[in-house]
Amino acid sequence: MPCGFQASGIKAGLKASGKSDLALLLAPEGAVCAGTFTKSLVRAACVDLCIDRLKANAGKVRAVLINSGHANACTGNRGLIDSLRATNALAERLGLMDEEVLICSTGVIGEAIPLENLILGLDPLLQELSDKGGSAAANAILTTDLVAKQIAYEAYLDGRRVRIGGMAKGSGMIHPNMATMLGYISCDAGVPVEVWKDMVDRVVEKSFNSITVDGDTSTNDAFLAFAAGSSLSLQALDTLEVGLTLTAQYLAKAIARDGEGANCLLEVQVIGADNDCVARQIGRTICSSSLVKTAINGCDPNWGRIIAAAGRAGAPFSQKELSLWIGPYQLIKDGEPLTFERNDVSTYMKKRKNGAYLIEDSIPLILKVGDGKGVAMSWGCDLSDQYVHINADYTT
Amino acid sequence: MPCGFQASGIKAGLKASGKSDLALLLAPEGAVCAGTFTKSLVRAACVDLCIDRLKANAGKVRAVLINSGHANACTGNRGLIDSLRATNALAERLGLMDEEVLICSTGVIGEAIPLENLILGLDPLLQELSDKGGSAAANAILTTDLVAKQIAYEAYLDGRRVRIGGMAKGSGMIHPNMATMLGYISCDAGVPVEVWKDMVDRVVEKSFNSITVDGDTSTNDAFLAFAAGSSLSLQALDTLEVGLTLTAQYLAKAIARDGEGANCLLEVQVIGADNDCVARQIGRTICSSSLVKTAINGCDPNWGRIIAAAGRAGAPFSQKELSLWIGPYQLIKDGEPLTFERNDVSTYMKKRKNGAYLIEDSIPLILKVGDGKGVAMSWGCDLSDQYVHINADYTT
Repeated sequence: MPCGFQASGIKAGLKASGKSDLALLLAPEGAVCAGTFTKSLVRAACVDLCIDRLKANAGKVRAVLINSGHANACTGNRGLIDSLRATNALAERLGLMDEEVLICSTGVIGEAIPLENLILGLDPLLQELSDKGGSAAANAILTTDLVAKQIAYEAYLDGRRVRIGGMAKGSGMIHPNMATMLGYISCDAGVPVEVWKDMVDRVVEKSFNSITVDGDTSTNDAFLAFAAGSSLSLQALDTLEVGLTLTAQYLAKAIARDGEGANCLLEVQVIGADNDCVARQIGRTICSSSLVKTAINGCDPNWGRIIAAAGRAGAPFSQKELSLWIGPYQLIKDGEPLTFERNDVSTYMKKRKNGAYLIEDSIPLILKVGDGKGVAMSWGCDLSDQYVHINADYTT
Repeated sequence: MPCGFQASGIKAGLKASGKSDLALLLAPEGAVCAGTFTKSLVRAACVDLCIDRLKANAGKVRAVLINSGHANACTGNRGLIDSLRATNALAERLGLMDEEVLICSTGVIGEAIPLENLILGLDPLLQELSDKGGSAAANAILTTDLVAKQIAYEAYLDGRRVRIGGMAKGSGMIHPNMATMLGYISCDAGVPVEVWKDMVDRVVEKSFNSITVDGDTSTNDAFLAFAAGSSLSLQALDTLEVGLTLTAQYLAKAIARDGEGANCLLEVQVIGADNDCVARQIGRTICSSSLVKTAINGCDPNWGRIIAAAGRAGAPFSQKELSLWIGPYQLIKDGEPLTFERNDVSTYMKKRKNGAYLIEDSIPLILKVGDGKGVAMSWGCDLSDQYVHINADYTT
């Protein structure tokens, strides 16, 4: 883990399955923290708690407790009371102020955390705390995920080694029931808190805000990023932002690839838009389209669905300037459909789809919408009948 | 059909399946016409042609030709040339100006209309034209629809009989490939053209704009409404609008119920919102949610997904004021989840889902979001694995 950071993850008996379910991330003194959260009006009390404490104590937050299995969302007044009790109990044990501790919950909506178990778990959780605890933490935050999602980068900036570590969970931002996209990044470079906040906002826009599995936003979505260490030069900060973006994009792509029932990652690059924001809007609409997603599932180079999705994105472009590629195959040029070997493109898609379970086995689309400078990458996944089966009968 | 209107539908050899594929609707002299169209930037040339001609000749448009099987969308410059040729050929035969004739196309995106066949079909189509041709026309506009969609209402207004007839096609607004929601209404009452335009806009908002199957907008969506006959009093116009709304809602619900792979109609009533527009926004988001739709498919009273969808609708309300019912069962009251018999609610949903193939077999949700006066009805359908199978391998 980055220098000074510690983590742990244990089985606290919260999940009926008996799997690992309680994690802790502790930043060194002097850390700054920035976060982004679900924009849904229906959200868990822990999200409100995080937002309030970050607003008041961005330069002070030191620890985040994460429980999986129970979202503690839509649990009425009890939701906030339980979140306060949990952070208070941890703060006491760490010798911190309550305001220096955050909590994130993930799991079934409407279910409260088994709080006595959580509090009994705090001492064992603290005993496990170490600079090698990243993997244990990354496992303890999972719910329906098929794989844990972790990444580490390092670079030499201003003549010294800087490390970035990240973990995330989520089978997409997708299922607000057994739910929640959670992401955490820690970094051992010192960054002024206001600079850090802006940097984290930009990084999230290019990563977690550029993926979609089924367009459903969770009640508990949260991303937190900590930085603590010696200060960097302005030039090194630019390089640091590149590293943070790569870290967050890796985690975001891993979430999309692990989307419920997904067989492959869909990677959409929109170029030539008026600006990056417009490009992202078009790319996200394509990634969100059920018809595009089912076509990808069927390895069907159905370009009509792709440009039809672009057309309803609410972003300006001219149909006559559209060009489209699936992998190396160009299907549309300046608004005119080209003749192409449907079987060749389908075979190409099949090969990519049946690749290893890695984020590298993506199906890449490139859509040129004009001659502007706006570009964006967006990621999604195919829509399979397994998605329907997983979700048609979840709580009953 | 309403007095003075005529229609026909024939097999013109456009579809490879040999099914009926060319329809004509002819309004009497003096008719006024209003229409609404897809808002997608990627749209068929026939949509542009309809919009332009209605703008210039709203008081004059007399006929609409409809071909099914080929959307004539994304066919490059040829799209407009073929649309102009088809309307010109029909206008000549009817003794009308080109500007008095519209064309709507529905079918596979990227495929041009077999125009020679269409033009050879015009004489047979005109021979079949009669006031009893509504059913033949309603059948000729279908693509993947399982059932034809027609309705007739009548009322006594100002002491005389007024009739409204309607037909529509679409397995949702959903599949921009073998695509398009088309709707047509004719009415034998005279209405000033500007009054008619406003009335049609309000009617569409409460009907075709309140349904969703998978959120994908077509390149060819079009709704046209004709009125022709003796003028009505102001008071009678209000009653006429009620009748038009019922007609359009019947057709819209029939489209949602016939959504690809659908097993039942989902009917969401949002009440207590700040205004009707906010209520509709919340209702449409719920109907569009893949997670709500899969839960309905599984007869799973998964209320967390329903209020989570409401929360991301982008419309203002307080989570603490939410109340939710599925049919007669209340699941949430003033933001607090209630205990309920999950099996009872699931059994209720199963009974509704396995009803006859009628729009009456809906699963009704009521969501109260506050104490405002805003209300809206929205309609959708469940998401089944058949939807994925139908769409995963369509063109290949």
